[in-house]
Amino acid sequence: MFKFGPNLIPETQIFYKSTYCFGLVNLKPIVAGHVLVVSKRLVTRFNDLTAEEAVDMMLSTKKISAIIEKQYQGSSLTFAMQDGPEAGQTVPHVHMHIIPRRKGDYANNDDIYEDLDQRNKHKKGPDNEERTPRSAAEMKEEADFLRVFFNNDE
Amino acid sequence: MFKFGPNLIPETQIFYKSTYCFGLVNLKPIVAGHVLVVSKRLVTRFNDLTAEEAVDMMLSTKKISAIIEKQYQGSSLTFAMQDGPEAGQTVPHVHMHIIPRRKGDYANNDDIYEDLDQRNKHKKGPDNEERTPRSAAEMKEEADFLRVFFNNDE
Repeated sequence: MFKFGPNLIPETQIFYKSTYCFGLVNLKPIVAGHVLVVSKRLVTRFNDLTAEEAVDMMLSTKKISAIIEKQYQGSSLTFAMQDGPEAGQTVPHVHMHIIPRRKGDYANNDDIYEDLDQRNKHKKGPDNEERTPRSAAEMKEEADFLRVFFNNDE
Repeated sequence: MFKFGPNLIPETQIFYKSTYCFGLVNLKPIVAGHVLVVSKRLVTRFNDLTAEEAVDMMLSTKKISAIIEKQYQGSSLTFAMQDGPEAGQTVPHVHMHIIPRRKGDYANNDDIYEDLDQRNKHKKGPDNEERTPRSAAEMKEEADFLRVFFNNDE
């Protein structure tokens, strides 16, 4: 089990592990294939990461995003890191969003970013009550699907 | 001079150089201190970068963002990479946005992302005609200010 901010994440939701990071499926994904790369060490801000951790996060992001784009039939990718509360960070733990994109997935292309911010209470956001959380079974199924694409080491 | 998509960028606008990347001030920044980290090699998509280039981009982003947050009195940072046209990428060349954030800088926190997308023609976007481009003198002044914080190598 790894921590993601105050939450304990079960292994069933983790599809990727590197030396310093893990890949996590989403409780309330914005689109199918929206996943997170999280530092194993619980630190809040990007610049709290050591150089080694930041490098690992980038290489993990590279590997995961290539698989995500292909497997979810994306033609582009959105990468976003909301680093601190004034940037819309809702879980105080460094994490990179990887979101597969395709033509017309959002009528207004950047509405996707509003969905990243729970503070837009009138919008459907990742932590917003209006958004229905997925079941544990559904999350496990996606993590199981994704896990086979990676050689995971502890 | 480096290329940024179809544009040739003069040295006066570059404040940072690493082995594989450069730091560029913005023609039309969303907020003061909004800068870009660009790969020296003209490639369109994040996964076109070699592992070495991606690592250099991450470490450059780390160094630059620490300075940017401090010098522009931010309390958070937004990092975004719009990777491909369906993600709102307007200049077809891999680049990371670094944006210092502070409380109340945007009434709706994630309106900042709409400003990243020139296709929101009704919004003020980086390439939108409604946004007044800065003068060469102004950009040079900011690049000169930032350049002193880095040990730049070619």
